[in-house]
Order: sequence, then structure tokens, then C-alpha cells
Amino acid sequence: MTIAIFGLGLIGGSVALELRTRSLGTLRILGVEKNPHHAQEAVQLSLVDALVEEDKAFAEADIVILAIPVNTIKENLNRFLDEIKSGQVIVDMGSTKRHICSSVKDHINRSRYVAAHPLAGTEFSGPKAAHLDLFKGKKNIICESEKSDSDALEMALKVFEFLGLENLYLSAEDHDKHMAYVSHLSHISSFTLSLTVQEIEKDEKQIFNLASTGFASTARLAKSNANTWGQIFEANSEYLLEAIDLYINNLNKFKKSLVDQDQEHSKSLMLKANDISRVLDGINFNH
Amino acid sequence: MTIAIFGLGLIGGSVALELRTRSLGTLRILGVEKNPHHAQEAVQLSLVDALVEEDKAFAEADIVILAIPVNTIKENLNRFLDEIKSGQVIVDMGSTKRHICSSVKDHINRSRYVAAHPLAGTEFSGPKAAHLDLFKGKKNIICESEKSDSDALEMALKVFEFLGLENLYLSAEDHDKHMAYVSHLSHISSFTLSLTVQEIEKDEKQIFNLASTGFASTARLAKSNANTWGQIFEANSEYLLEAIDLYINNLNKFKKSLVDQDQEHSKSLMLKANDISRVLDGINFNH
Repeated sequence: MTIAIFGLGLIGGSVALELRTRSLGTLRILGVEKNPHHAQEAVQLSLVDALVEEDKAFAEADIVILAIPVNTIKENLNRFLDEIKSGQVIVDMGSTKRHICSSVKDHINRSRYVAAHPLAGTEFSGPKAAHLDLFKGKKNIICESEKSDSDALEMALKVFEFLGLENLYLSAEDHDKHMAYVSHLSHISSFTLSLTVQEIEKDEKQIFNLASTGFASTARLAKSNANTWGQIFEANSEYLLEAIDLYINNLNKFKKSLVDQDQEHSKSLMLKANDISRVLDGINFNH
Repeated sequence: MTIAIFGLGLIGGSVALELRTRSLGTLRILGVEKNPHHAQEAVQLSLVDALVEEDKAFAEADIVILAIPVNTIKENLNRFLDEIKSGQVIVDMGSTKRHICSSVKDHINRSRYVAAHPLAGTEFSGPKAAHLDLFKGKKNIICESEKSDSDALEMALKVFEFLGLENLYLSAEDHDKHMAYVSHLSHISSFTLSLTVQEIEKDEKQIFNLASTGFASTARLAKSNANTWGQIFEANSEYLLEAIDLYINNLNKFKKSLVDQDQEHSKSLMLKANDISRVLDGINFNH
């Protein structure tokens, strides 16, 4: 079997590494990487058997996995579906699903495509961030599975299972809505915290001295890749804007409690916020 | 030597544990704990040699360490300074310093007081959260050290050194200003993220399924104790309100970039936010 992976960053590189290191039987991993610097790193790290051009990937692969930025998926998926032959499958691993799924909804080969999103991103990016076990025990959201041929879905599920992912099924609409709150808003709040602290603390050494592990945890996602996230935010701007407005609304409740010196109010907000403990305590921190 | 610790939660309990477990020579640790549930836990965990009333603590201790909520420190510090005898020292470990220091600025025994803030808080609280090495390698901010007698400061420094803290010196004003941005704002943003996600995701199971480690990291501080933080926010409301306004201002920049579909703008914000990496990569995550 031959698997082609487009994009050898954190996600694509980790898929490649897992398949290369742990698969039994004969498996050939082809990589397509347009960024010359990443291509070079992928070779040095032996992530794939060979780096190839797109046409060779489509000529030889049984499964094509897209781990490229979401805009690039959306801009190219129709063309990719034009190129595939019977029996081939395309799987994407992008962090937004609505725009991508809707862009190919009328394509004659739509049923050869499986829309997925493994919730395995970290604040690191590029081939060097790739590592084994990135996907182990993580959730994978599959969207519009009813629109994929059963054999295509089955092939994709085999790969997901191999990676250690646990599958959930959502509509693309629901996926994007939930992600706006549970993932994209976290990134916005972290980036914003970083900007705000840097505006006040001109001296990096000072931030370093005064920052506790609490700050480090809250600002961690501010290290995330600007290009990747710029595309995600734009692709999901509608829901994300709703989420940011609701967030500002809640910030204003805290502000009001401070202006009014109403500690009972701020405490009631925090006690409600504390309820997240039950969720957080169960999250798999394996990464 | 006898050390009395007022408040046996995360901070006070960890000081007690460190002193009880690792000190050489004869050291007696007295605990003052008004919360009966915490008092019982402290006894079960053998955090102190004895639980005593305030008057006994002041009668017997060489050093009194205050690890109680910041309002309680402010409300009682004058009275505590009334009670101390020559040679005794009071050290506080509260997370805000301006209101506390200013409340005792004219007290005749001011020089027997050392104002400190070990940056060792976590999202956990209570005696059960106490653990060894909480302070190891962490920063400790000492405020208005010039107002403490040199022998009082020296005694406090011995305790800080024993705990493994690294001391920094700031004015109470500067401490509170920096903390508003680097610590208190992180908590506000985390509490707010939790509230917002819970408003949309009524089903905890759904949040659990969809939350990645990124969300868990950003929302971690939302588990923090509402009473402790209600007091901190109120004591530092002036600077914290400034910080929240600046934060909302930066959020609005992200909003604008989304409304305008201006990916270059959002990317430039994120690239600037990425600069925090250099700081974060150096933070000591030992806790």
C-alpha cells in the first residue's frame, strides 16, 4: 500500500512518522511538501520514503492525506478530486470543515473524500515538531461521513485507528461552531494575553522574572503558527466572531464586578467558571 | 526556633511541609487555621507540630508567616503588629502588596514586617494541595524591603532561601502593576474562557470530547479558588481594570481583522504575540 501525505508539518509529519515507524507489512510513504525548508527537514528526519510532486502522488497513492493549511485545502480539493482514480481516497485533517466540505459538495468524486480533524494540534509547527504518539488517545472528528463511500471511509478509519485516534461524528456546521468556542477562542485569548502583557512589559527580562507557571499555561497557545491560525480564523470567522463577542460580554461582567467593588458578583462568576474542573480533570495530556 | 504559619492552604501548607520535612536542627511549626475543615486536613496531613490560637502563636513564635487571603491580611496586620514583641518578625505571602503595605505604613512596629509574594500559586488550594518543592526555583518578590529592620529581613531571607526561592525587590506599587498584567489578567482570561465555553456547550460531555490539550492549558487557571481570587482582584482592581481594558482593545483588533477578512492584519498580531516564546521557553515548570 502507498500513502501520500501532503504537508509534512506537525500533523502530516507525525502521521508519516507513525506509519513509517510502526506499520507492519509493506507500506510506502510519499511526501509532498512545497516549502523547501520543510522538505529538507523532512528528508533529514527520514519522515517519508520519498518526496514527490503532486502528480506522482496521485499516480501512486492508495490514500492521499492532506495536512496542509485549511485555505490551501479549500483552494485545491476540487482539483485533487478531479485527478483521483477509482479506488483512491482523499482524507483531509484541517481544523475547519464547513468551507472545505461545502467547496466540494457538488463534485462528482465527493464520495472519495473523507473530512476529518484530529484534535492533536500543539503550539509547535513544522517537521521538527512531528513526533510519535501525537495522536494516541486523542479525539478525531469526522464530518459528513454519510457523503463518503463506505470503502473510502473504511480505509480512512483504518489509518485513524492505527494512529490511536478515537472517532466522533459531527456535521461540518456543528464541528466549526464547537471548535470556535473550544479551540479557536482559546487561541485568540492566548494571543491577546501575550500582546497585552508585551505592551506593558517592554522588558522581556522583567516578564520572565514575574511570569509564573500560571501565565505560561494561559499564554502557551500564543506560540502557535500565525499562518496556520490566520487561515483557520478566517475560515471560521462567523462563529469565531460570535464567540469573541460572548467572551467580551463575560469580561465586561468581571469589569463591572470590579468597578462596583462587588466581590460577591466576581465570586459567583468564578464559582461558575470552576465547573470546568470536571471537564479538565479528564483531558488526556499525552502530547 | 518556632515558626507560626497562619493559613495552611496551598502556600502555608507547603511552607509548613517543607520546614517540617527538611529542616535541620530543632524547629517547631505552629499552625493557625480558622477553617475547621482545613484545620482537620492539616492535622491529618501532619503539616504542623500543633494547631494553636493566635495569641499562643504570637506568644511563642520567632517568625509569624501569613499565608491567609489578602483581605484578611490587610484587615488584621495592624492588630498583629500591635501584638508582637521585640525580635519577632511577621512575613506575609499575599498576592497583592500595595493595600497591605499602605495599611501599616504608619504602624510603630512596621519595621518588624517583611512584605513578600512567592510566585508559586497554582490552580489548586487547601491543605491537600500542599506539597514539597512548591517553591523550589520560583521567584519571590519582596516589597519595601527598606522599611524592614535588617535583622527582620535577614530572618525572612533565611526562610525564603530554605524554601528554594529566588528573591527580587520591587516597590509595592510596581509589584501590583506588574502582577495585574502578568498574573491577575491571566486568571481573568481563563475564568472568562471557561464561562464562555460553558454558556455555549451545555453538555459537559461534549466539551470533554472536543476539548484539546490547548483548551485545557488555557482554561487551567479557571479552576482557581474563587474566594482567594475575589480578594486579589478587588485589592488590585485599579491596575486590573487598566489591564482588562487593554486586553479588550487587543481583542477588538482581532475582531476587526476578522470582520475585514484581513488575514495580513491577524497574522501580524499573531507574529507579535509569538514573541512571548522567548519568555515562555525559559519558565520553570517545576510544580
